[in-house]
Amino acid sequence: MTVAASPRRELFREIKQSASAPDIAAAAALLEIGDRLGVLEEISTGGKFTASRLASIGELPESGVARYLEALESAGIIERVDTDGDFFRTVSDYDVIRHQAGYVSWTMNANRPFVEHPREFLIDPESARAAYVRDGRQVAVSSQWMGSLAFYPAAFEAITEARPTRVADLGSGTCRLLIELLDMLPGTTGLGLDLDQGACDAAKDAAAHAGMSDRLTVLQRSIQSLATDPGPLLDADVIHAGFVFHDMLPDEEHIADAVLANCHTALRPGGLMAITEAIPYVRTERERRFSSIVTYYHREFMTRKLLSVAEWEHKLSGAGFRHVETVELGFPTGRLFLARK
Amino acid sequence: MTVAASPRRELFREIKQSASAPDIAAAAALLEIGDRLGVLEEISTGGKFTASRLASIGELPESGVARYLEALESAGIIERVDTDGDFFRTVSDYDVIRHQAGYVSWTMNANRPFVEHPREFLIDPESARAAYVRDGRQVAVSSQWMGSLAFYPAAFEAITEARPTRVADLGSGTCRLLIELLDMLPGTTGLGLDLDQGACDAAKDAAAHAGMSDRLTVLQRSIQSLATDPGPLLDADVIHAGFVFHDMLPDEEHIADAVLANCHTALRPGGLMAITEAIPYVRTERERRFSSIVTYYHREFMTRKLLSVAEWEHKLSGAGFRHVETVELGFPTGRLFLARK
Repeated sequence: MTVAASPRRELFREIKQSASAPDIAAAAALLEIGDRLGVLEEISTGGKFTASRLASIGELPESGVARYLEALESAGIIERVDTDGDFFRTVSDYDVIRHQAGYVSWTMNANRPFVEHPREFLIDPESARAAYVRDGRQVAVSSQWMGSLAFYPAAFEAITEARPTRVADLGSGTCRLLIELLDMLPGTTGLGLDLDQGACDAAKDAAAHAGMSDRLTVLQRSIQSLATDPGPLLDADVIHAGFVFHDMLPDEEHIADAVLANCHTALRPGGLMAITEAIPYVRTERERRFSSIVTYYHREFMTRKLLSVAEWEHKLSGAGFRHVETVELGFPTGRLFLARK
Repeated sequence: MTVAASPRRELFREIKQSASAPDIAAAAALLEIGDRLGVLEEISTGGKFTASRLASIGELPESGVARYLEALESAGIIERVDTDGDFFRTVSDYDVIRHQAGYVSWTMNANRPFVEHPREFLIDPESARAAYVRDGRQVAVSSQWMGSLAFYPAAFEAITEARPTRVADLGSGTCRLLIELLDMLPGTTGLGLDLDQGACDAAKDAAAHAGMSDRLTVLQRSIQSLATDPGPLLDADVIHAGFVFHDMLPDEEHIADAVLANCHTALRPGGLMAITEAIPYVRTERERRFSSIVTYYHREFMTRKLLSVAEWEHKLSGAGFRHVETVELGFPTGRLFLARK
């Protein structure tokens, strides 16, 4: 069944998505420029900074950084801490500005090879897929901007409500979700599983920084490996998987099914499987346009299959789960599937 | 003086600029893909079309075009003409969707070399300017989308109100503005002046198509040439210049001044000089963010100088004009300067 999002489960529905097209376009470009200059992370901390400090971090001429900050300030993205000083900080709705910019940056920058070469993909898809490959860093950065306020708040709330003793996250990246969860749930342990060595290294550093190295285990291995060895999942009472299952579809659908069945087997009785995914071609006014580009990119250019709500419910039932609940996310075309063992 | 835009002079202020960031991003990508597939022009006519027809125009496999149309339809950008047929057409607010997409496409696609290489520009601007050059076609296409509803409506109204017998347009491109003006003013003749041979050829074709070859002269030459030979401008009672003067600044400012003085001399008594330009770093809430990226792109990456309202008024007075009036445009950071001889 599909349930309306409750006020508690959909904390971030109210983020201001609406703005003018010129505003949204400008913010995306200004933030991307900051990212490429290597200074955006420092700007985004919320603390105060100077052109001189950013020039040192980015190994850039200070005059050039000062002109970049002039643009950010005039755009209303940063502000002077005091009128006389050289210090700036981000404006109070900076998180929303960056979140909005994320949609533009993911759609127009991270997926740029598809926008620039659709003719090649339509005429000779196999050669095009080999020739026009996305830049993984641009995908990661824009996904983080876009997802920061919209991917996981519903999952976060559902998982904390379940009060788990052990949580596993499949495709955990830098373990941001797990670290936030463990911070909220002091007695809980976590397992992050990701194929990317760099992400796992960053996750271990972040866990150490948060004083959670004893509670958070990071495993560098593929999701597919769980089809034959579900060992790491034993004792979990919550397993979350964010945007990883569709990467196995359609070619490895049998492996995805085996992973899902093993998740069911490994979970403790009453345990929760939480899957955040994109569904294809949603037609509501709020979601239809972004859903279209997400679906089209996946089908035409990435040869990925997105499952509908009915197909997910069928798949989860087939793996042995009961009570599949579908939650609409703030992220258009995103859904959280909550399935009980 | 700066006057508030009158309801008549600012016809398109009410275009819906506001939408959600995911919507705006998705529309930009979907329309750019159509442009690169070579089918968007046919889609944009407003007439009905089929996948088969577009496949033939774009020399593409029909199945691929059908999947592209599936995406556009699901996005609510086109709709089926009737539920059984194979015919589609654009939705009623298609012009607004494309206009919004124009801001994203200009900012994130046409100016992409600047977004991708800011470090190189900050460290070694001269080499960067030689190495990272914009794609002229992407600039032209996105400017046309963006400008269609926002660049020239105020100029159009001011010029038609002046009931000129002869209008000159400097940087006339494909003469879209002149053809619309001459269509509205049956007794009027026009002169379009542009450096680009391809644009001039397209302008002549368009004039012939509109049955205006006898009333509309297209001259392929530089704006700068008017500094020494204002001959083509003689007998004009309106001269319009859209976004061409700033291309001479700062390096050719003396030439720009001479062109402006010659415009004043050539105009009939009581004649009107109408200049559409971008002004730098506007700080109103409506304009500040887009104004920032426009200013930053021009200053940092194109080494162009944008003049403030006061600087334009000074320049026009210096050329001999009286009664300089400044009109705020729907296009953020855009102004129309109306100066009388």
